[in-house]
Amino acid sequence: LRMASTGVNVAGLQKDKAYVGGKWVTAKSGKTFEVTNPANGKILGSVPDMDRSDAQAAIEVAYKTFQSWKTTLPKERSNILRRWFELCVKHKKELATLITLEMGKSFPESEGEIAYSSNFLEWYSEEARRIYGDVTPTPASNKRVMVIKQPVGVAAMITPWNFPSAMLTRKVGAALAAGCTVVAKPAEDTPFSALALCELAEQAGVPPGVFNVITSSRENASPIGKELCENPLVSKISFTGSSTVGKILLSQCASTVKRTSMELGGNAPFIVFDSADVDKAIQGLMFAKFRVTGQTCICANRILVQEGIYDKFVQALAKAIESQLKVGDGFEPGVTQGPLINARAVEKVEGLVNSSVSDGAKVIVGGSRKDGPGHFFNPTLLADVTTDMRVSTEEIFGPVAACIRFKTEEEAVTIANSTSYGLASYFYTSDISQSYRVSEALEFGMVGVNESAMTGPETTFGGWKESGLGSEGGKHGIDEYLQFKNVCYGIQPKP
Amino acid sequence: LRMASTGVNVAGLQKDKAYVGGKWVTAKSGKTFEVTNPANGKILGSVPDMDRSDAQAAIEVAYKTFQSWKTTLPKERSNILRRWFELCVKHKKELATLITLEMGKSFPESEGEIAYSSNFLEWYSEEARRIYGDVTPTPASNKRVMVIKQPVGVAAMITPWNFPSAMLTRKVGAALAAGCTVVAKPAEDTPFSALALCELAEQAGVPPGVFNVITSSRENASPIGKELCENPLVSKISFTGSSTVGKILLSQCASTVKRTSMELGGNAPFIVFDSADVDKAIQGLMFAKFRVTGQTCICANRILVQEGIYDKFVQALAKAIESQLKVGDGFEPGVTQGPLINARAVEKVEGLVNSSVSDGAKVIVGGSRKDGPGHFFNPTLLADVTTDMRVSTEEIFGPVAACIRFKTEEEAVTIANSTSYGLASYFYTSDISQSYRVSEALEFGMVGVNESAMTGPETTFGGWKESGLGSEGGKHGIDEYLQFKNVCYGIQPKP
Amino acid sequence: LRMASTGVNVAGLQKDKAYVGGKWVTAKSGKTFEVTNPANGKILGSVPDMDRSDAQAAIEVAYKTFQSWKTTLPKERSNILRRWFELCVKHKKELATLITLEMGKSFPESEGEIAYSSNFLEWYSEEARRIYGDVTPTPASNKRVMVIKQPVGVAAMITPWNFPSAMLTRKVGAALAAGCTVVAKPAEDTPFSALALCELAEQAGVPPGVFNVITSSRENASPIGKELCENPLVSKISFTGSSTVGKILLSQCASTVKRTSMELGGNAPFIVFDSADVDKAIQGLMFAKFRVTGQTCICANRILVQEGIYDKFVQALAKAIESQLKVGDGFEPGVTQGPLINARAVEKVEGLVNSSVSDGAKVIVGGSRKDGPGHFFNPTLLADVTTDMRVSTEEIFGPVAACIRFKTEEEAVTIANSTSYGLASYFYTSDISQSYRVSEALEFGMVGVNESAMTGPETTFGGWKESGLGSEGGKHGIDEYLQFKNVCYGIQPKP
Amino acid sequence: LRMASTGVNVAGLQKDKAYVGGKWVTAKSGKTFEVTNPANGKILGSVPDMDRSDAQAAIEVAYKTFQSWKTTLPKERSNILRRWFELCVKHKKELATLITLEMGKSFPESEGEIAYSSNFLEWYSEEARRIYGDVTPTPASNKRVMVIKQPVGVAAMITPWNFPSAMLTRKVGAALAAGCTVVAKPAEDTPFSALALCELAEQAGVPPGVFNVITSSRENASPIGKELCENPLVSKISFTGSSTVGKILLSQCASTVKRTSMELGGNAPFIVFDSADVDKAIQGLMFAKFRVTGQTCICANRILVQEGIYDKFVQALAKAIESQLKVGDGFEPGVTQGPLINARAVEKVEGLVNSSVSDGAKVIVGGSRKDGPGHFFNPTLLADVTTDMRVSTEEIFGPVAACIRFKTEEEAVTIANSTSYGLASYFYTSDISQSYRVSEALEFGMVGVNESAMTGPETTFGGWKESGLGSEGGKHGIDEYLQFKNVCYGIQPKP
Repeated sequence: LRMASTGVNVAGLQKDKAYVGGKWVTAKSGKTFEVTNPANGKILGSVPDMDRSDAQAAIEVAYKTFQSWKTTLPKERSNILRRWFELCVKHKKELATLITLEMGKSFPESEGEIAYSSNFLEWYSEEARRIYGDVTPTPASNKRVMVIKQPVGVAAMITPWNFPSAMLTRKVGAALAAGCTVVAKPAEDTPFSALALCELAEQAGVPPGVFNVITSSRENASPIGKELCENPLVSKISFTGSSTVGKILLSQCASTVKRTSMELGGNAPFIVFDSADVDKAIQGLMFAKFRVTGQTCICANRILVQEGIYDKFVQALAKAIESQLKVGDGFEPGVTQGPLINARAVEKVEGLVNSSVSDGAKVIVGGSRKDGPGHFFNPTLLADVTTDMRVSTEEIFGPVAACIRFKTEEEAVTIANSTSYGLASYFYTSDISQSYRVSEALEFGMVGVNESAMTGPETTFGGWKESGLGSEGGKHGIDEYLQFKNVCYGIQPKP
Repeated sequence: LRMASTGVNVAGLQKDKAYVGGKWVTAKSGKTFEVTNPANGKILGSVPDMDRSDAQAAIEVAYKTFQSWKTTLPKERSNILRRWFELCVKHKKELATLITLEMGKSFPESEGEIAYSSNFLEWYSEEARRIYGDVTPTPASNKRVMVIKQPVGVAAMITPWNFPSAMLTRKVGAALAAGCTVVAKPAEDTPFSALALCELAEQAGVPPGVFNVITSSRENASPIGKELCENPLVSKISFTGSSTVGKILLSQCASTVKRTSMELGGNAPFIVFDSADVDKAIQGLMFAKFRVTGQTCICANRILVQEGIYDKFVQALAKAIESQLKVGDGFEPGVTQGPLINARAVEKVEGLVNSSVSDGAKVIVGGSRKDGPGHFFNPTLLADVTTDMRVSTEEIFGPVAACIRFKTEEEAVTIANSTSYGLASYFYTSDISQSYRVSEALEFGMVGVNESAMTGPETTFGGWKESGLGSEGGKHGIDEYLQFKNVCYGIQPKP
Repeated sequence: LRMASTGVNVAGLQKDKAYVGGKWVTAKSGKTFEVTNPANGKILGSVPDMDRSDAQAAIEVAYKTFQSWKTTLPKERSNILRRWFELCVKHKKELATLITLEMGKSFPESEGEIAYSSNFLEWYSEEARRIYGDVTPTPASNKRVMVIKQPVGVAAMITPWNFPSAMLTRKVGAALAAGCTVVAKPAEDTPFSALALCELAEQAGVPPGVFNVITSSRENASPIGKELCENPLVSKISFTGSSTVGKILLSQCASTVKRTSMELGGNAPFIVFDSADVDKAIQGLMFAKFRVTGQTCICANRILVQEGIYDKFVQALAKAIESQLKVGDGFEPGVTQGPLINARAVEKVEGLVNSSVSDGAKVIVGGSRKDGPGHFFNPTLLADVTTDMRVSTEEIFGPVAACIRFKTEEEAVTIANSTSYGLASYFYTSDISQSYRVSEALEFGMVGVNESAMTGPETTFGGWKESGLGSEGGKHGIDEYLQFKNVCYGIQPKP
Repeated sequence: LRMASTGVNVAGLQKDKAYVGGKWVTAKSGKTFEVTNPANGKILGSVPDMDRSDAQAAIEVAYKTFQSWKTTLPKERSNILRRWFELCVKHKKELATLITLEMGKSFPESEGEIAYSSNFLEWYSEEARRIYGDVTPTPASNKRVMVIKQPVGVAAMITPWNFPSAMLTRKVGAALAAGCTVVAKPAEDTPFSALALCELAEQAGVPPGVFNVITSSRENASPIGKELCENPLVSKISFTGSSTVGKILLSQCASTVKRTSMELGGNAPFIVFDSADVDKAIQGLMFAKFRVTGQTCICANRILVQEGIYDKFVQALAKAIESQLKVGDGFEPGVTQGPLINARAVEKVEGLVNSSVSDGAKVIVGGSRKDGPGHFFNPTLLADVTTDMRVSTEEIFGPVAACIRFKTEEEAVTIANSTSYGLASYFYTSDISQSYRVSEALEFGMVGVNESAMTGPETTFGGWKESGLGSEGGKHGIDEYLQFKNVCYGIQPKP
């Protein structure tokens, strides 16, 4: 498979087998499933369609390997992660090509993802050496206490298709740095990016059995998820995906009291106050709304604009959409808006738009799918949106900007918080006091103040309410794979 | 109700109503249930038998109150908790009396619990002022990032009967310090201690609606638990109790992606190596095994003694049990072993002993229940216990010391870890290297090295594996009631 | 000595002896010196005029006591500090009366100081329990490393007259919490506040020899300082006072490589940008400039006003000065501006004003000393001040507001930083980006943004450049009295 | 200059000019001085003999460069340090050759130093990204407070000859990571290692003016030191060297209230208790005593052996010295003991040995200098040493093991602490309680328990008492180049 347009040869990194125990393996059943390019429907290849028994086998390998991996020195783990990082950087063109092929985002976006993705490996290679415990102040003259942090054990991961590389490294980097071993299951749409990471991990010296990737079709995803949740040899589940699936997994995790990290859905408000710099706000929104064609969990979902600038803002936004966005195959130069992931996704977005229009929203730009092959939807701007329309209450996950009008700060905050989601939020203002008030009042794990690009390895990424549990990245990300141990020595204080 | 033996008048603190929204309330149904003294079966009084609708009402009060409580200044919350602490110290005799009355532990133990319990309020009054966020190193010249910690919201708590005061303050202290409001449901056996805390909280200035306690019989416990888990207005559940119930609650929490802290069952190994100071080990074991008549989740459950000293150790232990322990009503001077909590408990312990004896264990001391009224079981020492006997695989929760023989360090660690529990563990050795090796290898959240008394406000208390999620006390306990918010400002780096 | 106006009897707290080794002692020489009230020149009493030999004796007591005090449990030290705090609160009226008597600030200000002062004892009673060490990630399989913090030893303190109580508790609280013992020498103008603290410390249970206060006249201050600096039994000097004296002490500390904390002079800029809320800025400035009659090291010294609002600002400031300030004896109701500390201080301020007027500054309000007894100077507003006038380059330490005009942000920052001092700074703006830019660019240890009241126990207080070394208060204040110890165990990783 | 024995060509890295502002420069005076090989007295080359005016010029460059360097992003500084690290690793043979040439340590030791030295650059490249500030809990509803850390400014460094590379990277790595610029002056014996680091820094992308190295002869060292201490453009001095020089520098730093880090002399006790594993203790001592021919500040100086094993221990030590050590040119295979640094050093060691023998010490092994060219001294074992002999009270800095007999733990601790030094200490025991008691009681910044190799980038290295101020390496090392800024925002809490 060689990309004509980019001239990048991905042959060495596109794998058609899963990776368990340091070996490239087929499903026990021998079954496979096909992966297609959402920009044109062409088949890219196939990978093993593993089932619950394959998951179980991978878990056993990971559990056995954990017994030795957990005692490696922090610096050894650091070195391995560093080499993995360097190999990802070296192969960034191939890795980016795989992303655009299997999930459609524009090639520059894919390159951006690989930079982002690799940075997690670098970050955690450094964090591995900084797992400090505490010496607790002595509670009694004959006691000495310390609290150390140790790896939780086997970490299972289920990752999504919208950032097929970064959502994996963000978890695996932390897990390996902490001393955990991993069984990961990528989304069925995007297995190639995960498998390519295995190849580079092996080259980097990740020992066999430390990082295992199992692939499956949509049909087997559920039983595999169940195995990962219920197998007592797994100590931790980290999942990024929909709230619906997240809740099922949480429920399955109960019987083994498993530690869980959940990065689930969002319904991000993007608030523009009258005092905002409108140009900056538009610029911020274009990124927050249309990156990856609107398919990220932190994409602006509800655009709240204060009445004093509402009309001006909508007008400027329409102009920006029309002049800055180009829909098409992600490899085509200039394209910013690749396809949606699949036909279901297009239908869903179309349904949301139609429903909202029925309920009174006005289409200012776009509003419909794009003809021809591939799962494309035209960038859309809806005005006169209200908070009860489906486009406001559901996660859009597509290129639809829905603008709501509000009057007061209090009203904006109330609307923003009126959701069970609590992932990302954004607001633009030029008032210092308001910047503190609103950032403190928003019930979201991330708040952008006059800024919409806020992710990266140093960022504490995590959702409030039903958007998730735990956090990834930043100073605290590695803690999700560690547990405390309180060690109390009894001593004789006098000779 | 006035205790003849101690001369303590508990009238002012023994409440017969629940406490919601700053008011003493009955169940909506008007029902009540009786509470009895396990030492003699006498009825101590009755309290409201609330149901799911009462729980819902309390949650709504707590949610509404949270909107203002969360914005109180840290120092205000600190002051209130401090006053509460001081009132508990002032009323320690009454509070201790209530404990011995409703759950039977010896009065000195009850006094110890009140000291322990109060200390959490003091600790968290101090922690309230130390909720530091981070200023994150700047990722780009036009961004400034901080990560702040904010209270999660309404925290629901379900607490056990074995430490009816301390298990509540350990949670409530942290929650209130963090800025959360609370709905707590104490065990049906021990509501009075919880209600007495409400009275003192009110005197201390805890505002109405911040700390709410609902009481119920065993029958209503399950629907109330369900409400606490499933109501979206509750953000956090903290439970201390059995692993069985914990798993049910976890499962119910899934649908609202609730944050959870679980302190569940244990099966603590107590390892004595050949090089140990046997006198110290015996002394440590007497506390680890027989405190609260063996009814704590960190009580030594499996006593592993290395073959070189096994016989000597068992002999010394028998002597210690016979000379140091006295069974009886907790108010009787000199009594160290109060009753078990109820008839079911006695039956369970008796069953475990009989089963083990059938399987070959030898009774060295005790072995049977004590005749007469009250739920008493005689302190028991079993030798020749093996790892497959029920007394080894189940949590005993009674005064039965079960001694297992082992040969090597590796064997001891393997046996110790061969359980799905991971709460407390203990070992005695005089070898420095072994002290590090074994404390690192034990898969338990707490390890006592030549020490068996290791709890207190400064201790990071929490279980591994199926013994729990999260931790209480110590430097990290308050984090269970906080969540991160990543705030990213976009700025213009040049004027 | 009984204050007629306040009706407060200070007899129990006004001591005429120094306090060493838990005893009230005279100077070895038997000499004493008199203390006077700066508001009227009346003699308040006399205290021992100790010399170098007395200092040496006190150091020896403190050193001997350190050997036991350092091993007290954190909680014991915490309890003692807490009781001391409570006694200060209980006696706040007496303590405040002593302050106004010996240094002149208005009685409400003195009450404020006692609240502020006591809060440090409370803060450090809590910090005492939170001296965490680190368990360092293992560098080799046969090593285990921890870094603990231990008290440095005897801490000597030299404290100023402008906050005779708070500048002492801020140091002593930290030192005692850390486990250090103390020899303190208060300013000769204000020994009574320090001695009153000794009385309460004793009542609180501070053991004999832990907190020692030696008093001396101006003449003996220098040899005593030398002894404190050069005696090898002293491990730490903490000084608050002038940069001139600070540099001498630093030089004397070199020969014993002593740890030092220095809180020295300031030359605080107070910048008002065109976009500022002028009312808020005036309000902030009135506090920053005129608190304690301008006699604090963080008082606004150079008032930089942007040209767009300069005239309006000066006008509003003149009005505020005239309407809000009242000069007089600190006990007189309504007085806000007590006397300066002594005649030298009045002369110095007068000289600065006259010199600046000669150089072209315009007197808008005040400008001269107040007739009659006592060391009073009228609140003064100077306009058309330039950066080279003495009032700009020297620390005024009096009620003189000197307004300078500037054009650009860059110019304001350059002027502000053009001093060897780096303690406090203030600026007012309504521009978010500017708030970050300027707060980051100012070379000062403290920056108030639209705020001028920023001290308290939680504040990290410390100067940059020649304004000091180390910091007091806040999360890090106790570290000044602690030192790291890296402990590395060699172990055998395998049995 | 090409090393025949190792075949390493150092031509590209051996520089004969100083490095200032990114340029290779001569002294303004044009003077130079010669550097010789201590193993044979041959001249290795010459470098500029700079004077105070050169220092001043370098400071000005560094100060100017600081204005831009301080605002570089943490990640940029991290990347540069990483590249520097990688270049050092790449050129380790050349760098090690330079060390052995200019200061004589054995080539394997030099290779070890380069690994050690490079690791600091790696460590600080990672630390650069982890300079977290604090968001302080809100003290009032209208205030928001954060404490950020900013670089102190120009850091001057004076480094010793015994680790000509590592003592520099340990400081420069931290300084550059923090955002400081540097002026460094290496010891006159070993300028080449420092200049080689400049070459690699330039290749790594360290911008001109960020890292400046000035060289001087012994005669100019003093005036240059004075300039570095007194120039107000320098904010920080970090010195590693003798206590004598350290005290002079400290005194000179007073007039500008400069921040200082001092790593000065030591007089390390090495205690062997009766219960110790003698083989391990001997092994540990051979490293602690004879590494770098006894010329490190953490070398064991006083060997305290408990009476029960004293004779056995001395005998075993004699055997180890005779069988394991080989004196000679550091390039010669098998050599472990290179020359001392110069003739003065040999004379000093000889004097200490002779004086102690006169006072009653017994020579068991060695005792004299080695004949022939080069500054060699034979490895020496002295028994019957007492605490008052010069060999006990002075820092030996040579290959002389002085064994003292003691009876009790208390006695050993008292002897160990009876020195004004407090750098490293070591003890061997098999008693857990004793290991805690003694490690806590020793007044030294570093304690090895059954371990004598305890340095590395993760180690908190620093002395107590007159052995120094501040610490290097580890979690806290970067703090020496940072200062706190407390930023307090005033806000309106309600809209």
